[in-house]
Amino acid sequence: MIIDCHGHFTTAPPQLAAWRSRQVAAAGSSLGAPDPAELVISDEELRAAVEANQLRLMDERGTDLTIFSPRASFMAHHVGDFAVSSVWARICNDLVHRVSTLFPARFAMGAMLPQSPGVDPASCLPELRRAVEELGAVSVNLNPDPSGGSWTAPPLTDRSWYPLYEALVEYDVPAMVHVSTSCNPAFHTTGAHYLNADTTAFMQLLQGDLFADFPTLRLVVPHGGGAVPYHWGRFRGLAQALGRPEPAELVGRNVFFDTCVYHRPGIDLLAQVVPAEGVLFASEMIGAVRGVDPHTGHHFDDTRRYVDATPHFSVEQRAAVYAGNALRVHPRLAARLATAR
Amino acid sequence: MIIDCHGHFTTAPPQLAAWRSRQVAAAGSSLGAPDPAELVISDEELRAAVEANQLRLMDERGTDLTIFSPRASFMAHHVGDFAVSSVWARICNDLVHRVSTLFPARFAMGAMLPQSPGVDPASCLPELRRAVEELGAVSVNLNPDPSGGSWTAPPLTDRSWYPLYEALVEYDVPAMVHVSTSCNPAFHTTGAHYLNADTTAFMQLLQGDLFADFPTLRLVVPHGGGAVPYHWGRFRGLAQALGRPEPAELVGRNVFFDTCVYHRPGIDLLAQVVPAEGVLFASEMIGAVRGVDPHTGHHFDDTRRYVDATPHFSVEQRAAVYAGNALRVHPRLAARLATAR
Repeated sequence: MIIDCHGHFTTAPPQLAAWRSRQVAAAGSSLGAPDPAELVISDEELRAAVEANQLRLMDERGTDLTIFSPRASFMAHHVGDFAVSSVWARICNDLVHRVSTLFPARFAMGAMLPQSPGVDPASCLPELRRAVEELGAVSVNLNPDPSGGSWTAPPLTDRSWYPLYEALVEYDVPAMVHVSTSCNPAFHTTGAHYLNADTTAFMQLLQGDLFADFPTLRLVVPHGGGAVPYHWGRFRGLAQALGRPEPAELVGRNVFFDTCVYHRPGIDLLAQVVPAEGVLFASEMIGAVRGVDPHTGHHFDDTRRYVDATPHFSVEQRAAVYAGNALRVHPRLAARLATAR
Repeated sequence: MIIDCHGHFTTAPPQLAAWRSRQVAAAGSSLGAPDPAELVISDEELRAAVEANQLRLMDERGTDLTIFSPRASFMAHHVGDFAVSSVWARICNDLVHRVSTLFPARFAMGAMLPQSPGVDPASCLPELRRAVEELGAVSVNLNPDPSGGSWTAPPLTDRSWYPLYEALVEYDVPAMVHVSTSCNPAFHTTGAHYLNADTTAFMQLLQGDLFADFPTLRLVVPHGGGAVPYHWGRFRGLAQALGRPEPAELVGRNVFFDTCVYHRPGIDLLAQVVPAEGVLFASEMIGAVRGVDPHTGHHFDDTRRYVDATPHFSVEQRAAVYAGNALRVHPRLAARLATAR
């Protein structure tokens, strides 16, 4: 079985973006916000949106199931206030929930949270509870920088985040640490901000002692862990200097890296330095990089080719990366699959 | 010959930090700033500071010469205003100049600039000119985020930076793109901010068309290029989507990565994906990571071991990485060495 733990609904029918444009315009003016009821997307439209895109590529690449969450760059928590984020998160979560209901064997839901800059993360609890209890979310995306590139939020080890962690532990649901669009002109969204956030989050976790307070909390650091595996020696040396445990002790227990690294040497490195129990297969397809590599004739984001080819996973490790680890990290997915059998 | 293109004076005699503390305190109060003349460091003290540290390790590791610039984390351009940065840059540049004069065969000077958040980069021109013309700097450190982690400066491709590039081109001197201390609690200085800055800068350069305006400008992106080589496929795919040239076309002509990657698999990856003409040997010793790797018994930052060991450089490429590329990138160093012979 092959589980892709990192997919976003980047191909939603165009009325979603049109509705959001009206909401964004209203947030910056005295206009009234649009009514969510005005957004109508039929099941046929939802089916078509994934059948022609993610599902087609999953079939081509042999991926059985994708953990499917709202489009990351569209979360845009910096827009408006908590009320704006709240309505938007409900809408986006409802849509991925519907996709997971239309294709229950192929998509499991990941949720977004209605974060807003400067607003207490505990404000997200009602939507988190709704997403898990009512919509069946098996994972939640947590944005460490709701400001969109100003990085005004405290580190993930700060106690202000704890109410969220308490709920995640209660539900046994992991969070993927994933930023959204950068509105800072210094940071290209997918070429800098995403990778920087991954590196930043991992270092925050390495510095702090979060998992002493939450021994069963699991955080997925996407995009192959940002710069971390490439600089594994640096992080090992910094951990040593800070009197912290070896980074490998975090990984596989509380912290996991996905395989969204879009070339073979990168996956080789990941497989070489990061314990295999800490690696989850993913492609973030259809996402940041959609083109075909002229050197290989294959899509850059067809990460299965690299994971299949790397000599640094044993047969057992590769199976764990493809499915076993994802099932361990996402027990609600494992339970759902067990029930479906 | 082995040239380390990235060393900072991290071991300056303690009176430097004491003087700086007084300057920082004065910058935040109505106290008068301390007189630079009150900072007295003898040649003997300078000699001792490097003989016991950088020079000892250079001898142990077989490094002939280091491009030696003021301590990066101490640049702290966010402190005070331009006047504060201006005095501090003069002091720090004078010290590394003196080290390069005391050991002319072992150290060549890299300069810091008196940058200050929100201040026109052109304000740095007098110190840049003094550093090159009077002090013999062969390289300059350029901070893409003088705010220290707020990232309020425009991208490096913005025209406000052009006066500096014009001077660098005029002098045929490269810049190393290097941030300083993070005062943003989200970013650990050496575990996140440095690497994020490298990734951010490279993506800015990939997005923009700076080198059409400055075809001979050379920028060194340190710390192995941040996350870039590990995500080489991502950057190739993004370049393709943005209608930009392959990243490899930038590298070796206008953009260079150093080898400050503190484990063998990281150097293997760098050597595998980045054209060798774009790689400069470096260790940033004595710097962010000073410990000994318990797995190998060697210092994490003893990058020569990894460069020597990697099978992905040919004999010619390895020689270029060790010296040829550095001499090509730093013509003023090459001229100085030619004169010394």
